[in-house]
Amino acid sequence: MMLPALRPVIYADFIERALREDLGRGGDLTTDATIAADALADGFILARAEGRLAGLDIARAVFEKLDPALKVVELSIDGQDLAAGQRILKIHGSARSILTAERTALNVLARMCGVATLTRAYVRAVQGSGARIVDTRKTTPLMRALEKYSVRCGGGYNHRFALDDSVLIKDNHLVAAGSVEAAVNAVRRGVGHTVKIELEVDTLEQLEQGLEIGIDVVLLDNMDVATLRRAVELVDGRAITEASGGITLDTAAAIAATGVDLMSVGALTHSAPALDLSLDLVS
Amino acid sequence: MMLPALRPVIYADFIERALREDLGRGGDLTTDATIAADALADGFILARAEGRLAGLDIARAVFEKLDPALKVVELSIDGQDLAAGQRILKIHGSARSILTAERTALNVLARMCGVATLTRAYVRAVQGSGARIVDTRKTTPLMRALEKYSVRCGGGYNHRFALDDSVLIKDNHLVAAGSVEAAVNAVRRGVGHTVKIELEVDTLEQLEQGLEIGIDVVLLDNMDVATLRRAVELVDGRAITEASGGITLDTAAAIAATGVDLMSVGALTHSAPALDLSLDLVS
Amino acid sequence: MMLPALRPVIYADFIERALREDLGRGGDLTTDATIAADALADGFILARAEGRLAGLDIARAVFEKLDPALKVVELSIDGQDLAAGQRILKIHGSARSILTAERTALNVLARMCGVATLTRAYVRAVQGSGARIVDTRKTTPLMRALEKYSVRCGGGYNHRFALDDSVLIKDNHLVAAGSVEAAVNAVRRGVGHTVKIELEVDTLEQLEQGLEIGIDVVLLDNMDVATLRRAVELVDGRAITEASGGITLDTAAAIAATGVDLMSVGALTHSAPALDLSLDLVS
Amino acid sequence: MMLPALRPVIYADFIERALREDLGRGGDLTTDATIAADALADGFILARAEGRLAGLDIARAVFEKLDPALKVVELSIDGQDLAAGQRILKIHGSARSILTAERTALNVLARMCGVATLTRAYVRAVQGSGARIVDTRKTTPLMRALEKYSVRCGGGYNHRFALDDSVLIKDNHLVAAGSVEAAVNAVRRGVGHTVKIELEVDTLEQLEQGLEIGIDVVLLDNMDVATLRRAVELVDGRAITEASGGITLDTAAAIAATGVDLMSVGALTHSAPALDLSLDLVS
Amino acid sequence: MMLPALRPVIYADFIERALREDLGRGGDLTTDATIAADALADGFILARAEGRLAGLDIARAVFEKLDPALKVVELSIDGQDLAAGQRILKIHGSARSILTAERTALNVLARMCGVATLTRAYVRAVQGSGARIVDTRKTTPLMRALEKYSVRCGGGYNHRFALDDSVLIKDNHLVAAGSVEAAVNAVRRGVGHTVKIELEVDTLEQLEQGLEIGIDVVLLDNMDVATLRRAVELVDGRAITEASGGITLDTAAAIAATGVDLMSVGALTHSAPALDLSLDLVS
Amino acid sequence: MMLPALRPVIYADFIERALREDLGRGGDLTTDATIAADALADGFILARAEGRLAGLDIARAVFEKLDPALKVVELSIDGQDLAAGQRILKIHGSARSILTAERTALNVLARMCGVATLTRAYVRAVQGSGARIVDTRKTTPLMRALEKYSVRCGGGYNHRFALDDSVLIKDNHLVAAGSVEAAVNAVRRGVGHTVKIELEVDTLEQLEQGLEIGIDVVLLDNMDVATLRRAVELVDGRAITEASGGITLDTAAAIAATGVDLMSVGALTHSAPALDLSLDLVS
Repeated sequence: MMLPALRPVIYADFIERALREDLGRGGDLTTDATIAADALADGFILARAEGRLAGLDIARAVFEKLDPALKVVELSIDGQDLAAGQRILKIHGSARSILTAERTALNVLARMCGVATLTRAYVRAVQGSGARIVDTRKTTPLMRALEKYSVRCGGGYNHRFALDDSVLIKDNHLVAAGSVEAAVNAVRRGVGHTVKIELEVDTLEQLEQGLEIGIDVVLLDNMDVATLRRAVELVDGRAITEASGGITLDTAAAIAATGVDLMSVGALTHSAPALDLSLDLVS
Repeated sequence: MMLPALRPVIYADFIERALREDLGRGGDLTTDATIAADALADGFILARAEGRLAGLDIARAVFEKLDPALKVVELSIDGQDLAAGQRILKIHGSARSILTAERTALNVLARMCGVATLTRAYVRAVQGSGARIVDTRKTTPLMRALEKYSVRCGGGYNHRFALDDSVLIKDNHLVAAGSVEAAVNAVRRGVGHTVKIELEVDTLEQLEQGLEIGIDVVLLDNMDVATLRRAVELVDGRAITEASGGITLDTAAAIAATGVDLMSVGALTHSAPALDLSLDLVS
Repeated sequence: MMLPALRPVIYADFIERALREDLGRGGDLTTDATIAADALADGFILARAEGRLAGLDIARAVFEKLDPALKVVELSIDGQDLAAGQRILKIHGSARSILTAERTALNVLARMCGVATLTRAYVRAVQGSGARIVDTRKTTPLMRALEKYSVRCGGGYNHRFALDDSVLIKDNHLVAAGSVEAAVNAVRRGVGHTVKIELEVDTLEQLEQGLEIGIDVVLLDNMDVATLRRAVELVDGRAITEASGGITLDTAAAIAATGVDLMSVGALTHSAPALDLSLDLVS
Repeated sequence: MMLPALRPVIYADFIERALREDLGRGGDLTTDATIAADALADGFILARAEGRLAGLDIARAVFEKLDPALKVVELSIDGQDLAAGQRILKIHGSARSILTAERTALNVLARMCGVATLTRAYVRAVQGSGARIVDTRKTTPLMRALEKYSVRCGGGYNHRFALDDSVLIKDNHLVAAGSVEAAVNAVRRGVGHTVKIELEVDTLEQLEQGLEIGIDVVLLDNMDVATLRRAVELVDGRAITEASGGITLDTAAAIAATGVDLMSVGALTHSAPALDLSLDLVS
Repeated sequence: MMLPALRPVIYADFIERALREDLGRGGDLTTDATIAADALADGFILARAEGRLAGLDIARAVFEKLDPALKVVELSIDGQDLAAGQRILKIHGSARSILTAERTALNVLARMCGVATLTRAYVRAVQGSGARIVDTRKTTPLMRALEKYSVRCGGGYNHRFALDDSVLIKDNHLVAAGSVEAAVNAVRRGVGHTVKIELEVDTLEQLEQGLEIGIDVVLLDNMDVATLRRAVELVDGRAITEASGGITLDTAAAIAATGVDLMSVGALTHSAPALDLSLDLVS
Repeated sequence: MMLPALRPVIYADFIERALREDLGRGGDLTTDATIAADALADGFILARAEGRLAGLDIARAVFEKLDPALKVVELSIDGQDLAAGQRILKIHGSARSILTAERTALNVLARMCGVATLTRAYVRAVQGSGARIVDTRKTTPLMRALEKYSVRCGGGYNHRFALDDSVLIKDNHLVAAGSVEAAVNAVRRGVGHTVKIELEVDTLEQLEQGLEIGIDVVLLDNMDVATLRRAVELVDGRAITEASGGITLDTAAAIAATGVDLMSVGALTHSAPALDLSLDLVS
């Protein structure tokens, strides 16, 4: 798996704000009162449940941001499967620092691993088909870059990052434009040549109109399996096909079997449970 | 329900960043190309599933931040139950603006309602007992204020907001301090008089030590129902009792029946699925 | 001309920082010492040279940000041609406020109009051909959204907004990947389905390899007119063609005549002279 | 040439924002898909045209900010002349990092060198006279510190940095105050003793009034060469003289010959074309 | 004295802004013009008056932020007494950097030491009694974390950090709630279990009502010594007692002798004179 | 008194951060639990001691920022004297909002009035002489603009705002440059024409050297009254004279009588006690 580079310049500010959110104005009252400033310890982050790793660099950066003197060693790699009980990060240094940064690091990492783990489940559910699992824009505010990266770690692919990087013509745009043809033409006149045009269709009639005027991707919205299969036949390679709407782990395989190229799942980012992680301190 | 005031000064910056995350540098390519700048519309946010409302002011603020000319009317109140299909926010004005702000508004609101709805389920599960459902610090980074407010909307209560507003002595602090007595005394020497002291205990022995030295709250960690019951008897009103660790909707009633004062549930904020919401446009 | 919406949430922070840059810690020493706090005036921004308007909303926002009590009226519309001497913005209110905001407003507006005016010149130079003038990523740091919008006001089109919204395979990527085929396949495996793939080629051989493997756009780098013409014939509609490299107002027409679809010009944003604007005060 | 220190604390935030503007949410799609995470390379920034160097530290900081593991070596010094083809910065390390930071680094550096190079042309045009070339406040928003430093690298001098560091009484201030005398007296009463007073005059009559009341600097606005010469004689060393208004490379020498102390040129910062730079990768 | 950890993540942004406030856009004009870029020097911060040290890490961070190449050595420890003339920080490196950072470093450090020194005076005034000196929320905006830490360095203790970490029921809250009982009950219903409840009382009657309903802390507002003594007797250990209102160094001992647990002094942070510090340069 | 305009763009961000510092993540626990969301009240800020007003707009802005629905009326004007007991600001609206914003508003206003009041005392002490009282750069970090404005409200004048708006050659610069002449010449070569040059001298010999080479302002550092008098005679109008160093309210008149033009007092901003203010609520 060739993962994209998640640059610190993208998440450094996020980490700092998250630490300040947890430290407040007074810092870690409990730790500062009970643990000596010069006490040293080793800490290990470990998975308490089986899952897929995503975000190890960011967890590491949380500890290093709180205390640059901490020595942090990554014991696995994003995109790897984790066994329950597996150690994934070692932190050596000030016991105070390790405990003070713990919760912020875990909160970010558990969410990212949660997204990767749920994505992996969908990817496995469609294995053997040619369908790719893709995400949506239904992400946690201010975490889109982190969550879309986590989807990649889970074996999924990214749909558009935001409103400005590709076109997705939905029902309201069609109504405003007057017709599929008018909408697509307006987009062609207005947007740059680097932008792909995707059309959301509810019916096979709309699909035919879209294919006629020519589009790059067609989003087949909330269609049942039979309709999806006919839609794929109708498209016949003239556009990329994307099934969308209420796809669950139970229905994923059947949908994938229709031959769609893509299956987009909002739940990957809006409803993934956190992976269960903990930090063990060895003093 | 007397809800705390969630001040715009707390979430305004969050909203702006979230909008910028979705608009990027080029804005809403699709909408700007297909819908006229002067087209007007009415939009309604509605619940597609039954749930509990939290965050309506913030959703409203998203639309008003994107376009101050939009007229936004709240059709319900935070803390209210929502029926499936119920309209909760009306937006009138530029059709472009409504569609461009839609996803950011829904992403925040669906997450907040998700937390409130899951909290409500736990609150209902323990109804009739005296136990309060409380949250933890296992929140989404940068959303702690919003999520803890959502817990309140769901009928739950808040545990500490951060590391600097109350003391929670855990295992690692005890080890460093040497004993329960030493740890509690160190805290008393070090922290201010406005700060409550909570002690996490794994065993009834630890609990007795804590009660002897005197603590405000005791966190009973991962104890089974029988042990919890004995712990409550042992405490006998000398401290507030909090059950914690893997509490599910299935086990909640039994735990509440032990007589504990509080039950803390990390899942309220780290694993609540988003409530299903949508925006309907009426042009 | 259907212009995209340039949302305040994109430029509000930019404007505030720009005002603070000019006011420093002490504000407008001269104005505050010589003009009474309650003196009123009318100010007009006018073009001192012929050109194309871009950024009027932003100029307006500068005045309103400095002093919300100012009444600002826009006297033209972005994308319109301006005659020398034409008034484009009227500001009524505190004379102090008008003078203090003047330079910041003019600095932003003059640069945006400069970009629009230069773009217009290129667009006129290729008029009658089917070629579109497009911008590049060679923009002023922190002004990309404003400058790409200005290009639209000048009649041009936007190339990609940033590194994350489309693929442009250049020489270094080809070398690293080993071949055109390997590079394109790596991209197809790695990036989402909403992303178009553009290939930069120096020779007709590379072009043929690209067409064979299948690409969306081909960037014909620094080719002379004869080679461009052959490249267009070779492509024969199988990809969008973009001429790039040192295109000047003198050479633009000849290049457009080769039949290329796009001509990208870095100078639109990195070297456009500011349009000459001034503010007249009528007290 | 003794250059001022351009401190990272001034430009660090600017650089981070510029990188985020170009990386967006998804980062460098092309590079991350085609180049292995562990591939190493050497990159060289070189001048493709003759010019004057300004901003090398900032370019270096862009690369180091994106990837602290890069080794960056400066091959020249700000304020030096550059030959076409001359290498000015060497970067060793991750090939991905070098390519991802390239455009942001070049965009800043090309603009700064552009300002320095145009300044140098004006300085050379007045060589032999005693006149200094000075800048104005007509700078790119948020780049004032960088552009005024670039003017210094080009051999020019800085006019005031902002509204709060010296007084420049213009026409509108005179009208509001009632007379030159009233305006100057108001300023003397109001502003601190560290602030110099400059008066803009359109006519020799105004100049005489200014000299009578006593001013530090006189801005001779849009005067022809003959009038400038008479103004210089009239001043006779009682104030610093500054010629301003539409000074071009063609007219600069004649204006300098009038004996003015300073010539201020807005074009140095508002209309300097970028210097042509490129990055070569050697893998 | 076991001091809390004052984490860089809390003050790093503050320091950067403070440096930018003093450097402006042009930096240190005087130093950059008179001192060579490669001149080295040793600088020492020393106390010119006797006092208590607080904030040495922050002063160090100011120098390191301006110029990471400076070598800074701390010669004392926060919470230590300083003799007049004592050296407390050594800085080695660029003479320019030392002089440019000097004022910002001294401004922060002198204020923090001032707070610590005044706190120490109050602590000494009540020595021998059991009373703790505590601070208030009357702090310098944006310096609360730093000033409350300084109070600790002076031997004092912290009252609540902010509005969200404990409850203090004042007169206006009582009036709104209707009675002491109603107010306390409302708070118990509304706030979390980790929050202590403090009641401000003006009279012994109010005190009795408070004790009856049960509160954690009682603030005895502006009572004379005789009344305070009776209040302490009345409370008889049922709540923590805090004297507040106009306590001076002259009256502190008598108030402490009444047996109150706490004495809160707003002047610690709102009116502490800066400690006299200077920087000596040895070149 | 013609006061400079203190623009919201300068202090808006400061106010927001200050409010967030006091509200934390949970807001005003006490107020939100005891006061109904729809309860209305009138609040009055009043002076509890005699003093000079500065910062009323900022106090108003704090309330309006927390709750834009509050109606705030200013009852006095910056620069006016305040009697003990005088009402200076009226706030009408949500009782919750008034109480929640109270402390932040008072903290800013009390500090600004404190600076103005102490400045007024110095100004009165030198009344009848021609000497101006001026401030220094010894200000509270991030409050320089507010504190220097407060000095103006107190009748004082501003020294330079920061390192970049005028030159002050001190001992270390002289040592580095080699001589007074060398230092002044270096500055003349290096800095812009809008910048005044001030020289700090310890002895009359240094003063003579400075006068010979020509300087704008001379800072007479820590001289006794007799030496100051001789220095003023020596200068004889050739430069502005500034006495500095340990000037107290007791010594001010005598120093003013030496004929110096300026007396700079660091204590105005680093050690001014807060003015005693309070907020009364009338429900």
